Amino acid sequence: MQSSNFSTPDRPEILYSRLGRNAREGDSVITRLMAEALSRPRMLSLAAGFTDNRVLPGDLVEEAVHALAGTGGNAHLQYGMNVGRPGLRRCVAQLLKGYPGEEALDLDEEQCLVTNGSQQALYILVQMFCDPGDIVLVESPSYFVFLELLKGLGVRAVPMPADGEGRIDLPGLEELLARLRQSGEGDRVRLMYLMGAFANPSTRCIGEEEKTGLARILEGMERPIPVIEDMAYRELYFDRPFPARSLLSLEAWRDYPVFYLGTFTKPFATGLKTGFIASRASESLRVFARIKGHQDFGSAHFNQAILQHIFERGAYESHLWEIRKHYLEKCRVLETALRENGLPEAGWTWQSPQGGLLLWARARENMDTRMGSPFHRACLEQDILYVPGDLCFAGKAPSHFVRLSFGALDRDLIPEAVRRFCEAARVAAVCGADFTG
Amino acid sequence: MQSSNFSTPDRPEILYSRLGRNAREGDSVITRLMAEALSRPRMLSLAAGFTDNRVLPGDLVEEAVHALAGTGGNAHLQYGMNVGRPGLRRCVAQLLKGYPGEEALDLDEEQCLVTNGSQQALYILVQMFCDPGDIVLVESPSYFVFLELLKGLGVRAVPMPADGEGRIDLPGLEELLARLRQSGEGDRVRLMYLMGAFANPSTRCIGEEEKTGLARILEGMERPIPVIEDMAYRELYFDRPFPARSLLSLEAWRDYPVFYLGTFTKPFATGLKTGFIASRASESLRVFARIKGHQDFGSAHFNQAILQHIFERGAYESHLWEIRKHYLEKCRVLETALRENGLPEAGWTWQSPQGGLLLWARARENMDTRMGSPFHRACLEQDILYVPGDLCFAGKAPSHFVRLSFGALDRDLIPEAVRRFCEAARVAAVCGADFTG
Repeated sequence: MQSSNFSTPDRPEILYSRLGRNAREGDSVITRLMAEALSRPRMLSLAAGFTDNRVLPGDLVEEAVHALAGTGGNAHLQYGMNVGRPGLRRCVAQLLKGYPGEEALDLDEEQCLVTNGSQQALYILVQMFCDPGDIVLVESPSYFVFLELLKGLGVRAVPMPADGEGRIDLPGLEELLARLRQSGEGDRVRLMYLMGAFANPSTRCIGEEEKTGLARILEGMERPIPVIEDMAYRELYFDRPFPARSLLSLEAWRDYPVFYLGTFTKPFATGLKTGFIASRASESLRVFARIKGHQDFGSAHFNQAILQHIFERGAYESHLWEIRKHYLEKCRVLETALRENGLPEAGWTWQSPQGGLLLWARARENMDTRMGSPFHRACLEQDILYVPGDLCFAGKAPSHFVRLSFGALDRDLIPEAVRRFCEAARVAAVCGADFTG
Repeated sequence: MQSSNFSTPDRPEILYSRLGRNAREGDSVITRLMAEALSRPRMLSLAAGFTDNRVLPGDLVEEAVHALAGTGGNAHLQYGMNVGRPGLRRCVAQLLKGYPGEEALDLDEEQCLVTNGSQQALYILVQMFCDPGDIVLVESPSYFVFLELLKGLGVRAVPMPADGEGRIDLPGLEELLARLRQSGEGDRVRLMYLMGAFANPSTRCIGEEEKTGLARILEGMERPIPVIEDMAYRELYFDRPFPARSLLSLEAWRDYPVFYLGTFTKPFATGLKTGFIASRASESLRVFARIKGHQDFGSAHFNQAILQHIFERGAYESHLWEIRKHYLEKCRVLETALRENGLPEAGWTWQSPQGGLLLWARARENMDTRMGSPFHRACLEQDILYVPGDLCFAGKAPSHFVRLSFGALDRDLIPEAVRRFCEAARVAAVCGADFTG
């Protein structure tokens, strides 16, 4: 092979798969946001969904590794099982049964599998149920990384209608499903994606009444539509768990294919990248495990051993209580600063979060928060990053929402970040008036 | 939803994707092997491709975690980047340049990405280049987990013809490619999969002459066929690296899309599950990264920080020298036992491995080693597990090979395991004679 024949190994005539072409042509919001952050070292990020280094459990992890090393067998550094470490799978079942009203949840470690964060579980579930062109029903708004994942796999996200508070509009959903059936697309609806607690981006939680109403609608369908209940933020409540039980514990959902996703990442240590899936749909779980086997043949066993050790000695739960206080305080610092800088007077509103790492704010309808808008540019000029809300919608997107995160940014920097954010909002309100006027 | 309507949440009317159906109907050799192992607690496994707990780097990992905790910032427990930790990516580039003759390899961290073991890299490469029905060219024999992965994705593995030593029969390959072109399937050939060093299962290494010959053939093709050079075992040589340079360093391959896969798992700590891909095909690497972003949004950052720390202080390389001696010794114990138990006299042959964790043995052609064969059953009765060689072939499979591993089994147990294995071989030779006679 003469190198003179080829200018570069990026040979344009290489054939990609359909998925490869999607990925090549697709856009990544996170990549763009990170590029912006990296190009501005002074940037204060209200965008990153990271956790706070200040409360990451460095000591606990070190102690756990020391204890594991002390057992002498090095088994924690060996391969684990594809489905996950049995002891940690027991911890998962125990964690789920620890929620009020869920003590009797009839689920054991056999129904719990370990994954690379809950992200991998999302990916595999979409892979196993959806072919390109199929439909996943999502909330409005929904998790934007999930929306990108769907796009990458060539799957259509169809938003479920919602009321002003983000609750699923149940009669509207029935109509949507009827329309899809009538247009011959009934069988293309393959999954429903719900974020049950402190959703990304809205921090909304789904109450039991809404959950039961959903079950009633799905009951009326010819075929079951498997449901993902993503609970990645469930542990991150500020002072008490959201009272609704998981779908797994509700009688109305008893025999329905439900996939509960959780993680030890967001609530504990993002760097450990260990999540899980729990479901009574045992055949689907076997299919899931087989795909995971092909994908990586098991998540890092070392991390699982660490988490099991910490969980079993009760340190997981006690650490959670520390960080809950921490994030509550940061959230209130953020909200206070937003108020003190006059955002409510400028027409912005938000629901005060009761957990999670995010705040979802709505501007006046004529305020454009999208990338490239005067407001977005004004924020970048102030070295402030946020997530434009329109990215979190599958269908027609409103352009006047923002997602702010108080997770990663140091508490002491939040007031300054908010000051600049609000300054940008003032500038943009003027420019925007010029812009639209 | 009335629970009386449904007997089980495994609702048969659930619609799976094409991939989901493949996974549901597919079979997993590893799962079967592990089930056999678990059902026989006295089992001595010559099958498992695990590493030896005795030489896993418990102390080094503990020290690294202690040092990372001492830096105080907890950054090692935070999310990392999707493409991997920059410092570890530098280590990867350094590792590759550390091989004799490859010091000048023009590759830096930008061309190295971190994955969940090299398994994830294999999966993503197949996803991005192959649609169902497409073809991947594989060696004979090849890595059976990779063959399963292809089946799961609906991709056809087509074996390249080989000579008696497992070397690729280059004229035979040209004929194969011509036949595929003539039958209109030329464009379906999307990848070539090579194990460059101490291949699983054969422990064969690919010499430079063979590599250059391959380049000459691919040069003649209308389109490039991206090539995977899987080097998962490269570091596990016994006393010196195999002298052939990687495809990345060969002039004949200079501008060809080559994907070098390696890992910190097999040669160091399987429980850390950290591998990598290196390539100059930068567009393909961007596509790869985007798919990885959807799949897990980055591998565990903690593990990467540990490995970087160990690598940078030189402990990675010195640890490798310890385990090389260890595995060489275990390999020789295995070979000695095979000889002392009369296997050569019974017509078995093998190439003495120069690295890796495996021994690939060939019985007389009339000895059937497949699952369920008299020999296989006799081994199970003796509580011995091996990998039947036929599982490692994509096409027509010879039935008289076995893959033996000296990785996981304790050195002191190898002689007893071999004694039983050879006893089974004797029994089977008699039964087999009855069986076929």
